[in-house]
Amino acid sequence: MRNYIIDKLYDKVNKNGVVCVGLDTSVDYIPQWLLDKNENIEDAIFEYNQKIIDATADAASCFKVQIAYYEALGIKGLMAYKRTLEYLRQKDCISIADIKRGDIAATAKMYAKAHFEGDFESDFITLSPYMGMDSIDPYLPYLERGDKGIFALVRTSNKGAEDLQYCDLKEGTKVYSHIGDQLHNMGKKFLGDSGYSAIGGVVGCTHVEEAVEIRERLNSMFFLIPGYGAQGGKAEDVALYLKEGNGGVVNSSRKILLAYKEDGNEKAFDISARNEALRMRDEIRNAVEKAR
Amino acid sequence: MRNYIIDKLYDKVNKNGVVCVGLDTSVDYIPQWLLDKNENIEDAIFEYNQKIIDATADAASCFKVQIAYYEALGIKGLMAYKRTLEYLRQKDCISIADIKRGDIAATAKMYAKAHFEGDFESDFITLSPYMGMDSIDPYLPYLERGDKGIFALVRTSNKGAEDLQYCDLKEGTKVYSHIGDQLHNMGKKFLGDSGYSAIGGVVGCTHVEEAVEIRERLNSMFFLIPGYGAQGGKAEDVALYLKEGNGGVVNSSRKILLAYKEDGNEKAFDISARNEALRMRDEIRNAVEKAR
Repeated sequence: MRNYIIDKLYDKVNKNGVVCVGLDTSVDYIPQWLLDKNENIEDAIFEYNQKIIDATADAASCFKVQIAYYEALGIKGLMAYKRTLEYLRQKDCISIADIKRGDIAATAKMYAKAHFEGDFESDFITLSPYMGMDSIDPYLPYLERGDKGIFALVRTSNKGAEDLQYCDLKEGTKVYSHIGDQLHNMGKKFLGDSGYSAIGGVVGCTHVEEAVEIRERLNSMFFLIPGYGAQGGKAEDVALYLKEGNGGVVNSSRKILLAYKEDGNEKAFDISARNEALRMRDEIRNAVEKAR
Repeated sequence: MRNYIIDKLYDKVNKNGVVCVGLDTSVDYIPQWLLDKNENIEDAIFEYNQKIIDATADAASCFKVQIAYYEALGIKGLMAYKRTLEYLRQKDCISIADIKRGDIAATAKMYAKAHFEGDFESDFITLSPYMGMDSIDPYLPYLERGDKGIFALVRTSNKGAEDLQYCDLKEGTKVYSHIGDQLHNMGKKFLGDSGYSAIGGVVGCTHVEEAVEIRERLNSMFFLIPGYGAQGGKAEDVALYLKEGNGGVVNSSRKILLAYKEDGNEKAFDISARNEALRMRDEIRNAVEKAR
């Protein structure tokens, strides 16, 4: 069935490329003129995001909104978060709420309600699997419905990944593979027409040596890929986590949001963001072509 | 030095006992008369919490506020969350924000800012360690300051704990021990006069067979212990995770919040909550005495 949100994301990638614009909107990223123009911080953040969204909507497949940046500003920040998600929905853009929640039972149901309904509704959310697969279960009714999806942490690209994710299990696999396998199996119930599941995985784009193994092993898992650009991952690395240029989206935040600093044009920060998104899209497209 | 927040919690446990009142305030827990009395849901939740806090402040060591229940109601819910934390601070009660956040670098700094400062400031927060120890680092400057602490997930009591936490590592330990050891070592920099660290751990109170080993191994780690009562853990089990009745706090949410249903007195829901907190406190005290 082509009713899953993951199929919509797959189609967007085919049309617009793999770029996921990370709206990690730190107040100090916002040009001074835009701060001055707005009476309060909530409006300034929202207008900044709105302009970035308008400028990159056809150069990106989706937008990842990192809630921590908004939580840090309390109620006002979360008002801007809410309005950003509403604006994305209004523009028919796909939103990924990067919330990395991880809890069980009634609590997890509350998180599902919080981020798949109401003020903070988004299309996808990220989850952390430390508590196990019953910390994923409460979200599944929304996946069954078709219009919501998740990305659970599988293997991240930070140094601390060695403290747990890279540990060798007695049974022979690494922790990240063990978690990846469980999520992959769980995801087979939610396969869309695209061949990908509504249960996606967060897989950082460094550690290229494992890329081929991970991509094959987690065959029907769509990847949310952080670590490109500012964090050191290259287009050639990214290409290995994709299948013919699809099957994943690649997040970039700072490099897109702060592109205007390199261009030296605060006024047109949105145009700089668009140009960087297009540059990144084409760079990855070329790397995918070369890897064929 | 006796300046750490963990020492304050230790003193509170000596004075008031180990009960941690879980403010998992689901709207359907609030008696109808209180809902009717208030014009909006935010005020109703806050008044409910306020009455529970007033009634249990001297029968409990601390209050754990589960943010998911508030997030589920969007901005209004988070307004009630903010006011609840403010009220706890005003009454000099110790608050634990059960947020289970887990992220790295700039994002984790934002979470620290969000929950150790500003609108959502609390004394302790819970964290999830899937991304590794660098997902803990950004909180440490607040711990150094002395007035903030964390509880990181070590071993939970849900079925899904088997999917990861109970897995055997090649090196011979289980995942939860490996994580526990790393946190325990990290915590040695933040030891208070009480002998406990400002880096605490969440350790569920079931699986009693391992209680003695965990308590010995993580000697200077203060435990936040869920799983009592509604979730099946007994006072005798809990006693094994404590050291002479301290070194941990035991959370109970539903059993305290909904005690009025057993008493059949909606009007005095706060008195029922108090009585249940006292009953639980004494039951655990007795179990600790017996275990000596």
